[in-house]
Formats: sequence, structure tokens, C-alpha cells
Amino acid sequence: MKIIILAGGEGKRMWPIQTDKCLIPFLGKPLLYRNLKQVRQNVDGEFIIVANPQSKDGVEKIAQELELSYTIAIQRESKGMADAILSAKDLIEGEVLVLNAEDQLDPKVYGEVIKGGGDVMVAGLKVDKYFPGGYIKAKGDRLEAIVEKPGAGNEPSDLVKLVVDYFKDGKKLVEYLEKATSEKDDVYEVALDKMIADGMDVKFTKYDGVWIPLKYPWQILDITAHLLFKIEHNISPGAKVSEKAIISGPVIIEEGVRVLEGAVIKGPCYIGKNVIVGNNSMVRESDLEEGCVTGFSSDITRSYIGANSWFHTNYVGDSVIEGDFGMGSGAVLANLRLDDHTIRVGDPSTSSGQVDSGRHKLGLIAGKGSRVGVNASTMPGARVGSNSLVGPGVVLYGDVKENKKVLVKQELEITEHTPALTSYDQFREKLK
Amino acid sequence: MKIIILAGGEGKRMWPIQTDKCLIPFLGKPLLYRNLKQVRQNVDGEFIIVANPQSKDGVEKIAQELELSYTIAIQRESKGMADAILSAKDLIEGEVLVLNAEDQLDPKVYGEVIKGGGDVMVAGLKVDKYFPGGYIKAKGDRLEAIVEKPGAGNEPSDLVKLVVDYFKDGKKLVEYLEKATSEKDDVYEVALDKMIADGMDVKFTKYDGVWIPLKYPWQILDITAHLLFKIEHNISPGAKVSEKAIISGPVIIEEGVRVLEGAVIKGPCYIGKNVIVGNNSMVRESDLEEGCVTGFSSDITRSYIGANSWFHTNYVGDSVIEGDFGMGSGAVLANLRLDDHTIRVGDPSTSSGQVDSGRHKLGLIAGKGSRVGVNASTMPGARVGSNSLVGPGVVLYGDVKENKKVLVKQELEITEHTPALTSYDQFREKLK
Amino acid sequence: MKIIILAGGEGKRMWPIQTDKCLIPFLGKPLLYRNLKQVRQNVDGEFIIVANPQSKDGVEKIAQELELSYTIAIQRESKGMADAILSAKDLIEGEVLVLNAEDQLDPKVYGEVIKGGGDVMVAGLKVDKYFPGGYIKAKGDRLEAIVEKPGAGNEPSDLVKLVVDYFKDGKKLVEYLEKATSEKDDVYEVALDKMIADGMDVKFTKYDGVWIPLKYPWQILDITAHLLFKIEHNISPGAKVSEKAIISGPVIIEEGVRVLEGAVIKGPCYIGKNVIVGNNSMVRESDLEEGCVTGFSSDITRSYIGANSWFHTNYVGDSVIEGDFGMGSGAVLANLRLDDHTIRVGDPSTSSGQVDSGRHKLGLIAGKGSRVGVNASTMPGARVGSNSLVGPGVVLYGDVKENKKVLVKQELEITEHTPALTSYDQFREKLK
Repeated sequence: MKIIILAGGEGKRMWPIQTDKCLIPFLGKPLLYRNLKQVRQNVDGEFIIVANPQSKDGVEKIAQELELSYTIAIQRESKGMADAILSAKDLIEGEVLVLNAEDQLDPKVYGEVIKGGGDVMVAGLKVDKYFPGGYIKAKGDRLEAIVEKPGAGNEPSDLVKLVVDYFKDGKKLVEYLEKATSEKDDVYEVALDKMIADGMDVKFTKYDGVWIPLKYPWQILDITAHLLFKIEHNISPGAKVSEKAIISGPVIIEEGVRVLEGAVIKGPCYIGKNVIVGNNSMVRESDLEEGCVTGFSSDITRSYIGANSWFHTNYVGDSVIEGDFGMGSGAVLANLRLDDHTIRVGDPSTSSGQVDSGRHKLGLIAGKGSRVGVNASTMPGARVGSNSLVGPGVVLYGDVKENKKVLVKQELEITEHTPALTSYDQFREKLK
Repeated sequence: MKIIILAGGEGKRMWPIQTDKCLIPFLGKPLLYRNLKQVRQNVDGEFIIVANPQSKDGVEKIAQELELSYTIAIQRESKGMADAILSAKDLIEGEVLVLNAEDQLDPKVYGEVIKGGGDVMVAGLKVDKYFPGGYIKAKGDRLEAIVEKPGAGNEPSDLVKLVVDYFKDGKKLVEYLEKATSEKDDVYEVALDKMIADGMDVKFTKYDGVWIPLKYPWQILDITAHLLFKIEHNISPGAKVSEKAIISGPVIIEEGVRVLEGAVIKGPCYIGKNVIVGNNSMVRESDLEEGCVTGFSSDITRSYIGANSWFHTNYVGDSVIEGDFGMGSGAVLANLRLDDHTIRVGDPSTSSGQVDSGRHKLGLIAGKGSRVGVNASTMPGARVGSNSLVGPGVVLYGDVKENKKVLVKQELEITEHTPALTSYDQFREKLK
Repeated sequence: MKIIILAGGEGKRMWPIQTDKCLIPFLGKPLLYRNLKQVRQNVDGEFIIVANPQSKDGVEKIAQELELSYTIAIQRESKGMADAILSAKDLIEGEVLVLNAEDQLDPKVYGEVIKGGGDVMVAGLKVDKYFPGGYIKAKGDRLEAIVEKPGAGNEPSDLVKLVVDYFKDGKKLVEYLEKATSEKDDVYEVALDKMIADGMDVKFTKYDGVWIPLKYPWQILDITAHLLFKIEHNISPGAKVSEKAIISGPVIIEEGVRVLEGAVIKGPCYIGKNVIVGNNSMVRESDLEEGCVTGFSSDITRSYIGANSWFHTNYVGDSVIEGDFGMGSGAVLANLRLDDHTIRVGDPSTSSGQVDSGRHKLGLIAGKGSRVGVNASTMPGARVGSNSLVGPGVVLYGDVKENKKVLVKQELEITEHTPALTSYDQFREKLK
């Protein structure tokens, strides 16, 4: 069995997160590491990992650490799934299982497609409400077609096709992919349709387990939560936890961590190597990668915090922080609209220029090396590009590109200070 | 004895508090409940409660819960005290005691007017300094006249007439009220003057106990303090108080309350049903009605907090919050002028458009359903109408009407972020 | 031996700190007190303290408290070191040791100059990098000249002359000073040069101990740190420290202090008389002079806080607060530039109008009686003059003169609040 792992995608919608999606560390290990490990434990086979030129080294390191039997193929440009597989065509033969590098899945699904019995076998996720993906049109247990984004009410079934695809004959898959053409980004689906049309035995299995993709940065929060809720409590003997700190629920606390007096950690939480959880700070349901410092009296809740980020008396709720981030005292990453609406995030690929995250709570999404100044506030769903600064006192409603500095220009009124009531009231009057 | 409770007043000056004054809950029970209970315990008689059409149902519920012997009379429009009593005229006979629904009084005063021995008996509050009310002009223990707002220095005595009025013959009171006319809002006082002129035996008793009226919303704080300082320590067995929380002084903690680790409650305090006092939060000398949540590291001091309000890392000092209120992290309700003056509040009925609360400390007065965004600041004595939003980062000096959204428009300067010192200094220079 | 203490300097560069430099209290005692005490313990002699008309009373009080043998000479105007000494000329005879009132020095240096064996003996501080002072040009152990600010790379030695000057014959010193003339502020150095030219035996000793001058206000932080790191742990029996507070490291806690539940003090710290360290507040490596109140959940770190200052949920880092200071809840004194540069402070005597403090961390420098409003932010190195107010929400980049009030004028957009998403998004759009 060849297991093709698609790890070369571009992650356009992940902005401002620049780390290759599959290399983002969760609970101390890159996402790809976790997923490869799970597949290896459940499927016998040789890995073909399709990486891109930027991610190649990171991917290689992971494969080696896992002592996989693997080959890395490089997809030069991000030109879709068919192209990704074809960049590894010389390696493909015999049975093939195609998987996304980032998707969180229950491992039982691998066996179900492998042992499903068709020439081709795919998995359909049971959904409760409309999802903008490719739907399975079925005839019994056989696939008739994949219907891309049919629109709510027009779904041919309640099953959305995942990328857990089994092919009995890998060579044939390559043939079909090489022949297929399309003007859209659906060459792979065109090839699949052709197989059906040619009478191949294309079947599907229903899947109702967990599925978490990583297409948008806020899905980092979904993956974080998913992984945290599976952890087993473990505090490293090399960590120093004050007797006057409070730890509850399952937490992983790594070596070199210091949890200071009055700090509260409410699990599930991952506290990476050498993190300092400062006095009177609270961390809840969050992943703090190594080297972070919460400072005094911060509240970090349901967030993903990349390595070497520092805080000081901040509220960080439902936020995605890539790393090397800094935040001045009193700055707040708001995570809830005052009107309780779901939170929309910029996305130039949509007609509105925004996409609804579907979340009622979402804070900041911050690229690596960014900073938020003292007493600044960022609004729910705002994004800040790498190495940019949001200045002190700024109320940030929109996004900030990379390498920018955003400062507020306040109109200050400077008057003589006399203790008389009048001048103050006059000022108050003017502002009415 | 008929006990007439005047509970139909409009409370014009209570804006933005919309709840009928006598129905505002304190320590879990409406003000009227507490006051009726006190009267019932001290005076034998039948209650005639004059309500308005809006408050009727609430008043009825309270009277039933107390198992009073009562009748409710409805005053259709708010047209003063004489009209209020006359709206119940068919019920009035025999001895009559007239009381305000909201005033906090020492119960001993009831007996003193009832047993005072006159045809009419009123109570005069001993005051230390000028108060803009009706003063008693006395001859021995007999009342000669009520002098309305004589002005400082012109007081005929140091006694201000309260509304604790006893009439031996209720029918006669009705007669006098029906005959009296005035172009001002003083028909009741005109009737009283006529009784004196007609030679009736109108006497007064001196009263030097507590008296707290409810005319302005900040008096809610006075009532809160008055009631809190009388409580007896009681923590419900149905409350969960962390061993790592600190409770001192007398507190009432109701069922379903959760006090989390590191929280501090300094009595006297009332913590209503199902309230959550969050980690590292402090509550002092305050009334938190049911369902409130303080969040992380809030400081709520000498405040009245209506039901279902939530906070998160806030300072709430000397504030009146009607309920269903929400406050973003880092928002502050300032309660002290930087120049230490007493705090003035808007009041269109005065020539200056303001009234001096006489308080050195007064925070926000917020109507039901209002919101204050992250890192916003409200100035001492500011008022926010029901369902209005004060946006993130706003510094609110004045008032906000109902159903408004106030957002700050910041001028942001966005520049390339280079680590060179120059551009920052140039910016700094510009702001000088 | 006459010990001349130069305590009459003007401290022009100390703005906005107005207290005479030598009278600034550290750890409960004026700087002059500490320094005179150290000299007395190490040198036998009679003190001649040159004060100015403003500082005279304070200086006298200290000398009396120390039971010194002393005379105070008054320098009418601040006209340099030679003039200062000459204002005491009638008192000078025999051996003379000249010292600055404020410099922190290792006491061993006194003996080294006194017993050095020359007619005149000075001390040269060994420096690692260029310092803008007077350098020693040496020939063996003899002084050839003092070279004022030679510029980096042109130093005649690595020794900067301190003010620890011994003269065997005080009368001769007076003679030389009276004869010397200069258009610059270097009459003293001109006299010294003349002594050398006349063949007097002018020698120097190398000194490599501590030296902390007090020329700029941020040096108050250096002195604070220097003194704190020498303290011995001592908690007054007259202090009340909650069992639920956490004290670590050496601290001095004076009488009448109250340390409330959840407070953290990390030594070395000095907590002056009657200070209140409020619930959940943290004080680290700081000097809080008497009567200060930290309020709830403040973080005061590496700062000097003059008497009777109050705080409430603030971050105060690396700041110099003269005293009688007040800070509203949520205000932050930023101490670190987002770009990590060293912090520059205004100084009109330089061509750039600024001087580099050389510090990576420096917060606010605040004159006596100043105030910072709720949620205000001051930028690193900002200065606020006595009795000035920085209003709520202000982001202060520059300096504020004395007796000013600085308020921010926000442009507020007030709209109807409807729960529709549109208007909010439109607003968001406009701000882009």
C-alpha cells in the first residue's frame, strides 16, 4: 500500500499565518507529525509525502523522527490535488490511499475505505446542515457523481466527500489523472467521474466521526480543542509549579515550565517547554507552545499561542497567535461582538470580501512577530500580519498587512489645570 | 387603620433606570416588598396601595406574597400626591396613615405619628444643613405651616416634613383634598394648610432616625448600603465557595452561587442566586442580583448590579447597573474625578441642566440591556440608556440615550514598520 | 578634616522632579541622610554642607538627626562647584575632602584619596566605554590634566574623574579658586590645572567600585536598585501581612503597613510606613515610600514611588513617581518600546532635544501631585509636570508641563442601535 499524504497545499486562506499548515505545532509537535503517526499506527504501507519546496525540510525532519518508510515528492507550484498526486507518479503502484496532511479524522475511517471492496472507495461525512463542499450522489453503496457545492436545499445526499480515497490500482489512478482536463480546480474530480463513467466499481462508506479541516486560521482553534480534549494529565518533574498556584482538569506541563503563585490553569491545557505562567494569570483550554510568558494577571482562554509569545495583563480569548508575539499591558483581544452576531473575517475570494467564521467567539489572528501595544483593543476576527505593530490605544476594527505600524493620532486638548469645575464641565459640554 | 402606600409615582428623575422605583430588587427582593413587610410588622391595618398601570402586576404579586390584607388602587396619570390618594377615595374611612412606597425609615416613626394625639400628625426630620424640601413652621408641638423650599438661611425650623402622615378621620382628608386647588404640584400641602386654618389639631413629631428617599438613581446606592449594613451572615448550603476564595465580613450568598479560586468578597455583600464570582475577582460592599457573572479579575465596589449582568476584568465603582448589562474586558467605570469635585449628573429640570449628586464617588448609571465595550471608560456620573452600546475604547463624558451605539472614530496612521528610530520619533514629534 | 558636601546644585536636568536631589527619600530616608551617614562612618571630620536657600531647612534637619558636627553654608545661586566651595570659604582650613551630596560610592574610596599622599588627591573611575565626563590624563600616579568630554576614541585614559577630592591645605584651595576664572562652568577644573602647572603634588587613585550619580531622573531607579540590593529582610511587628499574601526575597516592611490577601511582594522591596498593598497586587524590586496604596491588582515593578501615591489596577514599570500621585484604573505606564530601542527622554540642552537614557526599559517620570486617568497610557520616557492631569484614554507620547490638563477629544459616531449586522459592518468598512 502506498499512502499519499497531500502536504503541499498553499494555504492561501490561512493569512496571516505563514507557517506551512502541516508544520504548525500543536501540543509541542507539528500537525503533520501527529497525523502521520496516527496513519502509521492504523495502516500498513509506504508513505509518499507530497510537499512544497518551502515545507520540504520540515516534512523530511518529521518523517525521519517518526522513522517512517517514506519518499518525499515535491509539487513545484500549488496547482491542485491531481497535480499533487502526479508529482509523485513515478512512485505510485499497487494499492493507494490518498489523504490530506492536516485533516483531523477518526482512524477507523482508513480501514473502512481500504476494506470497502471497490476498485475505488471514498468516504462521505454525514452532515446535519449545508456545507460548501462536494456532495456524494449515491446509488446504493455506489458513487454516481460528486456534486460540487450544490447549494442548500439541492444536496443530492447528506454526505460530503472527504479526502480519504482508496484506489486498488494506483497506476490506473495516474492514467486517469493524466488524461483528465478541466478549466477549474477539479481535475481530480473529473478523473473520478470518468472512472464512474467507464464502469469502474466506485463505492463509498458513510463516516460520522470527527472531521476538522484546516483551511481557515480559526480552524486552528478547532484542532487545538480537539487535541486538548484527548490529553492525559502529565506534569513534568522538570517543571516548577508553585504550591500557591491552582491546577485543575487534565493538563500537560512540560519541562522547564514555571507556574507562579496565584496562577490558575484550568484544563485541558498544554503548557509547552519553559513557559512561564505568571502571578495571578489564568490559562484555560489553551495551547501555549514553548517559551511563552503570560506575565501578570493575564487571562488566556480557548486560544492557540505559538512559541515565544509574551503577555502582560491581557485578555486573550479565542485567538490564534502564530508566535514571537508581544502584547503590552492592558491590551485586549475582544472575542465577542457586542451585538452577539457570528464573527466575519476578511476573505477577498468572496463577493462580500468577508467570510462568516460561524463562530460567536473569535479574537485576533496574528502573524509571527506582531505586536499589540498597551491598552490597544482588537475587534473580533481582526487579523494582523507578520511583524506589524498595533500601537497603544488603537481600536482595531479591520486587518493590518505585514510590516506595518498602526498608530492612533489623538487630538489632545491641553489647558491650564485649575481646580475650578467650570473648565471641565465646558469640555464635557463640548463633547455632547 | 387604613395604610395608604403611595407606589404610583413616575420616577422621572430616575432615568435611565426604567424599572418602577418600588419594584427595584434589593438583596433579592423588591424594595416595596421590604417596606411593606416593615410596615406590616409595626402597624395594624389594611393596606391601600396606589399603583400605576405599569406597576400594578408587580405590586399585586408582592402584596400576595406577603399575604397582606390589601386593595390596589390605580392612579391613571402621575398627577401628584393628592390625586394619588383620591384615586383610592372610595376605600378611605376611619384612621389613615399615608406613606411613600420607597422611603427607608426607622419603623419607630409610625408609632410616633399614630400615637401622637392630634387630628393630624406629621413627622419632621431633623436636618443639619439646608435641604430643598418642605419645612415645618411650628408653634409648640403644633404645626403652623409647611414652608416649601425656603432657601438656606430662611428655614423656619430644622425640621423637614416627611411623608408619614396620620389622619384621625380619613373621610375628612378626602373632603379637604377634593376641595383644595393649586396651580402647582402642592394640592396636598394646600389641603393641610386649610386644615390648620380651620383650627384642626395638626401636630408634629420630631424624627431623627434614618431617611433615604429614592428620587435620583444614585440613591439606589444609599439604599443598598443601608440594607447591606443590616444583613446577617448567611451562606447557602447550595452555594459552592472555593476553599481558595476569601470571604470576610457579613455576606449573604444565595443558592447556586459559585465563588471561584482567588476570588475575594468583602462584606457586607449580597450575592444573589446563581451568581459566579470569577477567579481573582473582588466584590466589596455591593449587591449583585441573581445571575450575574464577574468574570476574571474584576473589582466591583460599593455598587448595585441588577440581575444577569456580566463583567470581565473591569473596575465598577459606585455604579448603578439596572441589569442584563455587559462589559468588555478592560472597560472601567470611573468613579472619582481627577480634580476631586463632587459629581454632577444631567438633569434637564434644572437651569444648569445638571444636578450635583453631592457624591465624591459615583460611577456609571446604566439602563437595562446596555453594554460597554473593551477598554472603554465612562466618566463619573455618566448615564447610558437601555439597550445602548458604548463602543470599545470610547471615553464617555456625557450621557447616551436609549438604543444608541456610540463608536469612536480614530484617525489611524499606518506606516511601514522599519526598526529605525526616526519614524517613531518623527511621529512623536508631530504629536507634541 | 573638613568634609565639604556639595548639596546646593540646581538639578536642572531632573525635571519634572522638583524635590531637591539630595532630599529625595529612598527607603524612608533622604538621600543626603544616607550619604552623610556613610561618610561619617568612614571619615573623621567636620562637615561643611553647601545647601541652597530652598534646601537649607531640609539639610539642617538631616544633619541634626545624624547629630553631625556641621555647619551649613548657603550658595545663593547655582553657579558651579567653585562658587559652591567659595560660599563656605570662611569655614575652610586644614585638610579638606570635597564630595557630591548625591553620588553613590563605595566608602573605601574616601580612605584612598585621604591616605593617597599627594597635596591634592582625586579619584578616577575605571570605565569600560566612553562616558561624557572629565578624563584623567596621567603620568604615572600623577595627574597631568583633566580632559573634559574628549569624545569616544580620544580618551587620554580609561579613568573618569569623580568628585572625591582631597586637599592637604584647604586655604590654598580657596586661594586657587578665588584666582581662577573661566567663561565656562569649569572654574574648579581651571584651578586644579593651575595647581598642577604650579608644580603641586596632584595625584590620583584608581577606583573600580560602584558610582551612581543623580543628574537625570531615571538615575533615581539606579539608586533605588543599588540600595534595595543591600537591604536586610525586616518586617515590622506593627505591620499587618495577610496569611494569604506572598512575600519572597528580602523586603523591608515598615510599621502600619497592610498587605492584603492575594498580594505578592517579590524582594528586594521597601514598603514604607502605612502603605497598603492591595488585594492581588504585585510589587517587585521597588521602593514605595510611606502612605502609598497600590489598590486592586496593580503591578509595580522596578519603580520608585514617592509618598502618598495611589494606584488601582495599573501597570507601573521602571517608573519614577515623585509623590502625591494618582492613577485611574486600567492606566498603564508603558516601559518598553515595541521596537525594543533604548528609550530617549526630552532634554532641551541637547541638539536633538532628547537624550538617550541608555535604558531598554523606562516608564513614566511624574512630578508631584500629577494624575493619570483611567485607561490612559503613557509611552516609555514620557514626563508629566507637577499637578498636571493626563486624562482618561489619552495615549501620551510626549511631555506635559506643570499645571496642565490633557484631555483627548474623540470623534464619536452615534447611531441607532439595531441588531442588524449591516450598520456595524458599514462602520467597519469606513474605518478601513
